[in-house]
Amino acid sequence: MHHDSPVPPLRMARVRAILHELDIDALLFLDMKNVRYLTGFTGSDGALVIGEKQEILLVDGRYTNQARKEVEGPRVFEYKEKIDGIVAILSDGSLRSVGFESQAMNVNTHLKLTEKLGALKLNPMSDQIGALRAVKDEKEIAYIRRAAEISCEALTAVRDLIKPGVRETDIAIELDFRMRRCGAEQVSFPTIVASGANSAQPHAQPGSRAIENGDIVIIDYGAVYCGYHSDETCTFAVGVKDKKQEEAYSLVKTAHDRALEAVKAGIPCVEIDRIARDCIETGKLGKYFTHGTGHGVGLDVHEAPRIASNSEMVLEAGMVLTVEPAVYIPDLWGVRIEDMILVKEDGCEVLTKVSKDFTVLH
Amino acid sequence: MHHDSPVPPLRMARVRAILHELDIDALLFLDMKNVRYLTGFTGSDGALVIGEKQEILLVDGRYTNQARKEVEGPRVFEYKEKIDGIVAILSDGSLRSVGFESQAMNVNTHLKLTEKLGALKLNPMSDQIGALRAVKDEKEIAYIRRAAEISCEALTAVRDLIKPGVRETDIAIELDFRMRRCGAEQVSFPTIVASGANSAQPHAQPGSRAIENGDIVIIDYGAVYCGYHSDETCTFAVGVKDKKQEEAYSLVKTAHDRALEAVKAGIPCVEIDRIARDCIETGKLGKYFTHGTGHGVGLDVHEAPRIASNSEMVLEAGMVLTVEPAVYIPDLWGVRIEDMILVKEDGCEVLTKVSKDFTVLH
Repeated sequence: MHHDSPVPPLRMARVRAILHELDIDALLFLDMKNVRYLTGFTGSDGALVIGEKQEILLVDGRYTNQARKEVEGPRVFEYKEKIDGIVAILSDGSLRSVGFESQAMNVNTHLKLTEKLGALKLNPMSDQIGALRAVKDEKEIAYIRRAAEISCEALTAVRDLIKPGVRETDIAIELDFRMRRCGAEQVSFPTIVASGANSAQPHAQPGSRAIENGDIVIIDYGAVYCGYHSDETCTFAVGVKDKKQEEAYSLVKTAHDRALEAVKAGIPCVEIDRIARDCIETGKLGKYFTHGTGHGVGLDVHEAPRIASNSEMVLEAGMVLTVEPAVYIPDLWGVRIEDMILVKEDGCEVLTKVSKDFTVLH
Repeated sequence: MHHDSPVPPLRMARVRAILHELDIDALLFLDMKNVRYLTGFTGSDGALVIGEKQEILLVDGRYTNQARKEVEGPRVFEYKEKIDGIVAILSDGSLRSVGFESQAMNVNTHLKLTEKLGALKLNPMSDQIGALRAVKDEKEIAYIRRAAEISCEALTAVRDLIKPGVRETDIAIELDFRMRRCGAEQVSFPTIVASGANSAQPHAQPGSRAIENGDIVIIDYGAVYCGYHSDETCTFAVGVKDKKQEEAYSLVKTAHDRALEAVKAGIPCVEIDRIARDCIETGKLGKYFTHGTGHGVGLDVHEAPRIASNSEMVLEAGMVLTVEPAVYIPDLWGVRIEDMILVKEDGCEVLTKVSKDFTVLH
C-alpha cells in the first residue's frame, strides 16, 4: 500500500533549488515526514542528507532492508549511532556548510553535532519543506480524499451508537475499528468523543461517561491512507432540541460557511481566520472560540498552513486544510464544526463528507 | 481514569534537588510526559516552570479548563503563543539562569527564547527527569502490570486468527480492538504483525499479505493503561515445524532466558545486553541481531534505561524494562522474543504473560 509509486523528481529538484538559494553545500533532514516526502521511506527513524551530487538516506539496522526496498534514488547508509552516522556522512571533506530543519533538531543533537563537525557550519533553516508540502499534487489529494471517504463511511456505520446509555469510549473504540476495517492504515489521532460538559473541552479524551438525553456530542476523528490524514469534526445533539444549543450551532455553522465561501487561491490565511472569528464575535460568543480556525493536513495531521490570526501564509491552489470554528461554554457544552477542504484557484472543494446540518439524534 | 490520584510530592522534591545541585533558579519542562509525571496534566501541549517558590503550568486556551481540573499544586497560566508565555513567566525579574531539557527543546524554540530572554541564561540539562522516571513507584507498577494483563487477554482472544489465509492487517486490527475493549485507553504503538519474509524486518508494518503454512508470524504489541505502556513480542510458527526456525527460536529463547536470569539491582545495563548478544553470537547468528536488547517502559513506550552495548545506566529495583533478543534472516524470516520485566533487588518479575515457549499454531 505504501510502495506503489516513486517519489516525484520535482520534489528533489525543489530541494536543490533551496540549496542554491541559501548558498549552502547540503541539507540535513531529521523530520521523518519530510524524509518520507522526499524519498518514500516510511520508517520511523533515520536521517537524509542531500547535497549537490549526493542523496543519502541514513537508517539503523532495523530499517536497512526496508529502506533498500522502498527507496529508489538515494543511497542507503546504515549507522549504529545516528549522530556518528551523520558526522561520518557530512565529514567527507567536500562540505563547508549544511542547512538543517531548526524545528526538527533538538538542542542536545545540535550540541553534539556542532562539537563533532568542527569547522563545518550548521545553518538553521526555516520550515521550507513544510511550505513545499503544503501544496499537494494529484496523488496526494487522491490519498487524502480516500482517507476522508473512509472516515465518513465509518462514522455512518457507528451513528446508531450515539444515543443515551452508550459510553464515549464505546463509540470511540467502535469508530476506530470501523475506520481501519474500511481501509485506514491508522487513525489520524486519538479520536475525540466528548459528551455533555466534556464537549466544552476542545481536546477531551473519551471516558466512561455515558451519553444522556439533552447532550451535545462532539466527534473529532480521521483516517490515514497511504500516509495521508483526514480530519473532521461533527457535533450532534441527542434526544432534545435545545434552543441555546441550536443557536450556538447555527452561529458556528455560519462562521464555517462564510470562511469556506472566502477560500480561494491568493487569500491570506489570516483573512479566513478573521472572517470566522468576526462572525462568532458578532454573535457575542467570541471569547468562547479559544483556538485557531484551521490547519493544513497531509503526511502530518497538523502541518502548514496555519489558519490563525498570526499566520503569514497565503492560500494556494492544491493546499488541503481544515476550517473548524467552535465555541466552548465552560462546564455546559461546546460546538465545533470542522471540514477539510481543497483550495482551488477560484474556490474550494469540501473533502469531508458527513453533513454539517444541525442534527438531533434519536 | 486519569485523575484518580495526586502526583506524589516526592517527585517535585526531587526536581527541587536538581535545582540546588545545578545551582540554577528554575527549570523549564517541554517534554509532555515529564510534565504529566510532575503535575498530572494529561494534555498534549504546554510547558512547566519550576522555581524555588513557584510551580507554573503553561497551557493554551484548549487546555485551560482541563489543566485546572487535573492539576493540584501548580498555578495554571494560559498563553496564546507558547514562546511568549514562557518568556512572560521567566522574565519576572527574579531569575538569572534556567535549566531546560536539551532533548525536548528544538533549535528553533531555543533561538527564539534566547533572543527574547536577553540576559537570562538557558542551561541545557541532560535527561535527569528521564533517570528519575526510570524507577517506578507502586502505583506506576500497578498500571504497567494492568497494561500487560490487558494485552495478554487480547492476544489470547485473537490467537485463533493466526492461521493460513488471514491477512496481517486483519489480525492487527482485531488485536487493537480487543485491547481497547479489554480496557486499554490506547495501544502502545502501531501493532506489528509480520508474517513470512516480512518477519525479517524488525519494524514491519502489517500489510495485506495473508499468512501461509510454514510462516513465522511476529506480533509486537502493547496496551496503555492510565498513561502507562506495555510492550511484548510473540513469535509463532504456523502449520509446520521447521527445524531451522525451531533452532533459531531456541537460540533466541536461551538468550532471553539468560538475560532475565542476570537481571537484578546493581547490574549494569551493558551487561544484560552483552549476555544476550554473546549467546546469539555463540550460535553463529550474531550478525542477524541488529538492534539493542531492550529499553525502559513507562509513560513512554521507549524510555530510560536503554539495554544496549553503550548504555551507561545501572539497573535499580523498580525499573521496568523489556528484554527482546532477536534474529532476522534477510528475505526469509525472523524471531523476536520480548518480555517486559520489573527489576527487583535480587532478580526480576516478568510482567508480560503470554508463554514464550516455541509454539506451532494450527
